[in-house]
Amino acid sequence: MPQHVVIIGAVALGPKAAARFKRLEPDSRVTMVDRAKLISYGGCGIPYFVSGDVSDAVELQKTAFHMVRDEEFFHATKDVDVRTETEALSIDRAAKTVTLRHLPTGREETLGYDKLVLAMGSTPLALSVPGAQLRGIHAVHGLEAAQRIRALVSGGGVSRAVVVGAGFIGLELAVALADMWGVETTVVEFRDQILPGVIGGNLARMAQKHMEEKGVVFRLGEQVRAFEGGDGDRVARVVTDNATLEADLVIVAIGVRPNSALAREAGLSVSERGGIKVDDQLRTSDPDIYAGGDCVEIKHLITGSPAYLPLGSLANRQGRVIGTNLAGGASEFSGAVGSWCVKLFDLSAAGTGLTLAAAKAAGFDALSVLVSQLDRAHFYPDKGLMSLELVAERGTGRVLGMQGLAVMGDALVGKVDVVAALLPRGLTVETLSGLEMAYSPPFAAALDILNVVGNATENILAGRNRGIHVDEFAALWAARNGNGTYILDCREQANVTELLAAHPAHWHNIPQGELRGRLDEIPRDNTSVVLVCNTGARSYEAFVTLAHAGFKDVVSVEGGMTAVLAAGIQL
Amino acid sequence: MPQHVVIIGAVALGPKAAARFKRLEPDSRVTMVDRAKLISYGGCGIPYFVSGDVSDAVELQKTAFHMVRDEEFFHATKDVDVRTETEALSIDRAAKTVTLRHLPTGREETLGYDKLVLAMGSTPLALSVPGAQLRGIHAVHGLEAAQRIRALVSGGGVSRAVVVGAGFIGLELAVALADMWGVETTVVEFRDQILPGVIGGNLARMAQKHMEEKGVVFRLGEQVRAFEGGDGDRVARVVTDNATLEADLVIVAIGVRPNSALAREAGLSVSERGGIKVDDQLRTSDPDIYAGGDCVEIKHLITGSPAYLPLGSLANRQGRVIGTNLAGGASEFSGAVGSWCVKLFDLSAAGTGLTLAAAKAAGFDALSVLVSQLDRAHFYPDKGLMSLELVAERGTGRVLGMQGLAVMGDALVGKVDVVAALLPRGLTVETLSGLEMAYSPPFAAALDILNVVGNATENILAGRNRGIHVDEFAALWAARNGNGTYILDCREQANVTELLAAHPAHWHNIPQGELRGRLDEIPRDNTSVVLVCNTGARSYEAFVTLAHAGFKDVVSVEGGMTAVLAAGIQL
Repeated sequence: MPQHVVIIGAVALGPKAAARFKRLEPDSRVTMVDRAKLISYGGCGIPYFVSGDVSDAVELQKTAFHMVRDEEFFHATKDVDVRTETEALSIDRAAKTVTLRHLPTGREETLGYDKLVLAMGSTPLALSVPGAQLRGIHAVHGLEAAQRIRALVSGGGVSRAVVVGAGFIGLELAVALADMWGVETTVVEFRDQILPGVIGGNLARMAQKHMEEKGVVFRLGEQVRAFEGGDGDRVARVVTDNATLEADLVIVAIGVRPNSALAREAGLSVSERGGIKVDDQLRTSDPDIYAGGDCVEIKHLITGSPAYLPLGSLANRQGRVIGTNLAGGASEFSGAVGSWCVKLFDLSAAGTGLTLAAAKAAGFDALSVLVSQLDRAHFYPDKGLMSLELVAERGTGRVLGMQGLAVMGDALVGKVDVVAALLPRGLTVETLSGLEMAYSPPFAAALDILNVVGNATENILAGRNRGIHVDEFAALWAARNGNGTYILDCREQANVTELLAAHPAHWHNIPQGELRGRLDEIPRDNTSVVLVCNTGARSYEAFVTLAHAGFKDVVSVEGGMTAVLAAGIQL
Repeated sequence: MPQHVVIIGAVALGPKAAARFKRLEPDSRVTMVDRAKLISYGGCGIPYFVSGDVSDAVELQKTAFHMVRDEEFFHATKDVDVRTETEALSIDRAAKTVTLRHLPTGREETLGYDKLVLAMGSTPLALSVPGAQLRGIHAVHGLEAAQRIRALVSGGGVSRAVVVGAGFIGLELAVALADMWGVETTVVEFRDQILPGVIGGNLARMAQKHMEEKGVVFRLGEQVRAFEGGDGDRVARVVTDNATLEADLVIVAIGVRPNSALAREAGLSVSERGGIKVDDQLRTSDPDIYAGGDCVEIKHLITGSPAYLPLGSLANRQGRVIGTNLAGGASEFSGAVGSWCVKLFDLSAAGTGLTLAAAKAAGFDALSVLVSQLDRAHFYPDKGLMSLELVAERGTGRVLGMQGLAVMGDALVGKVDVVAALLPRGLTVETLSGLEMAYSPPFAAALDILNVVGNATENILAGRNRGIHVDEFAALWAARNGNGTYILDCREQANVTELLAAHPAHWHNIPQGELRGRLDEIPRDNTSVVLVCNTGARSYEAFVTLAHAGFKDVVSVEGGMTAVLAAGIQL
């Protein structure tokens, strides 16, 4: 029997659910409403519109075949009725109606539904500090806001910008401003690293260094206390704990919160942090009401706990699941591991699952292992560095997550996608070691970096190697005058000449190939031996040699000098 | 107790097994022998040395940290004794000895072993036709052969080359010759497509078209009958079924066979096609003898049958497994799905699992679905076409394989690696539809192409769409005057103007958005309606509309005009 489906929200999930449902039940009717005038746009493309890479905002609203996804498009091609600039005021679950208000006219209307879909998305968190209402302070939310920012920078009136928040959107906007418009850009982040929560500190430092080399200034561990106006009601300065920063433009990107007030007021289950609760079929606590996208909470497939993951890729897939289930199907969306990727100038970052910190916070006895190496057969001319940090559980060897950085971004995303695909299926370090990866010199190394990071982690879990991270090395190095650390560089002598000359008391060199014959040069008493080489491969060999020779207090630096230099540690 | 391990073969698997074993058992002894003078090189890099991308052959023998992996290197860094130019003549399994001959001196020696590893690799198949002994006819095998070919082309004496065989190595060499040295290159292949056995005919045609645009000439379905000499004993002509081709250089790359004579003569189990048989721990029929790499047969994880997959990436992983097991471990190598990738000028090809033809040959009731779309958010400036052909089993929806082509090669390899990782774990089309893939506009589309190909296949399996492949469309088009086919193009009118003018009797246009209102324009009697659009997305929508309106004989062209044009079909 034909149904009437009402969908609230028409950006990503709403349109997808509508189209899927109508293909399955062409005789049913769909009404989709949205507060905004512009709908069905690629919200993740906003930084590329601000940068100018995307010439016109309407491009974000187009299909791959250049048709604009407006009301008319949905009516003609999908047989879906769309009402824009229309707000949903309330849901009457008993009567199965929604009350709508057309914003330009104020006209209200009550619409009956057989099934309802909540796709209201999220709202950027605001900074509640003095001056927050000044002009020139923007959140990145919706096409209209993006158009305002773009108009400002392309008009030439912005020479200094402050971005508050070093998450995905903050960093993408910082790149857009600094790279394409030459704006002096400062990023203020109250936590002590960029990409907090999604990447470990060592990788974050490497990414930060790259962005600094491109001209972006970071102020980490600093909080914004106030905005100050200059000329009239325009922002002119950002006041933090430590500094006052001049700014013609401020972008606040400190996160989003789910739009769930409508659901809560209708008596649907909503979590403490505000996400609408849904089951595996994306039904809310009312079986006639579905919800998905940025307004819901889903299950994190590693921790098993509820998580809030506002990601466009999830919204699209959830839309199809809801479309199927509206038509009587039983499609499932069981949760997510939280895969992501972001381009930061010439470097790409990507990850999936838990970081080491998140894994520990979730109660796992976790460790992480860092590998840095050239991604490609090393003899192939076109190659670049890739660093992967694998997070695994001691004892079980279960993989909990992986994060990485690379020059070859697509290749990195490929590795992350492989791990993400296996994560919910009980991936172990051993499986990763043996994983079959396509190989040819222009694409990868004969022993793929995923196999390498699996092998390296397996060796550490089995006690055949003991690694320290770059930040631990940095701490040892900073305290080198007092801690009796013996740094042993296992590279060939030619690679070590400068370091030996600069730090004769602390830096030592025995090439790995000579180590077995020169063991008596290494002090045995009360000395920690720290092995380092180029990437960690030779220092692992050296570790095996020293362990076999009875040395007890030995560690090797994961990722080697490659990782040390990428993180910008001064030697 | 310390053991003596003898390893026969020192290219890929042998060195890996030796190094792994020595790290686990430093007190044990390893002797590794090889017939050749140059060992431990990246064989897959040979085409890039021939092309000049890799300047010197010794680069293929170097580690990532620029040390040459020769006898001295293995002795110093791995504590492994290597004997080059040394042939293994026979194995006495009862006495546990190997008899070796040092080729330069002819001196023979018998060496005892506790464990033996067979890593003898493969030998190129020869063409046994008249003239096959002429100078200038080369197989691509080993660094010495590569050096001879490179010397010829860099010497300027080669203006026309014929490559026999359109598999990976043949095509890589064709690219090397045509691209870097400007050699007029013709590829002769006796089967009717390039990359036979590893990719379907439609994708093969697209890749062939790309290579033809770069100047390579293909002669498919043609067999070489003879080579003819010109000046002295140098090759001058290649005679095929249909033509006589001038050639200064001939490369024969028609496949390889496992080097297993030594194993067979020692009474080990060897398959009919010549691969040494091994178990899941890579033991031969003699538990003290391991084997791996190009000389063994392994289990194909999709068919469950033995397969011969001479791939360098497998050899490396097998080497580690053998190294572990030599030291008393129980590491497993359960088989492979056969992942591969190859770069063909600006296009990359990759695949995993079975092709449609291979799946049918293995007894599966299989179908394949082709998707062609831009890989990236379509609004992102830097993007390129990706085509994926997914092979699945009807009924179960089990995924059996996937092959693809793309401009963004790393991205394609990433998709293939994801499918490869899941294939042995019972991947279904439904799982692929819902797979979590990292998304950001510079890397992928919001609905990843893997989700799209999963969705498209699911729709076809469920009867919600009925697709035809490009070659089926080409056959219908060729017979258009007699078969009552009604081609209905669902794109906007502006995209179709030229085709409508050129073929008024056969080409029809109703934009998908107008279709519901114009159904009475479409003939209902004895007419097959063939729907086509740009990529297959709108023709799927149109299929749903027509099916709902009662049209029975309707199909849509998979991959749409994008695939038709990429395959070079003349309209």
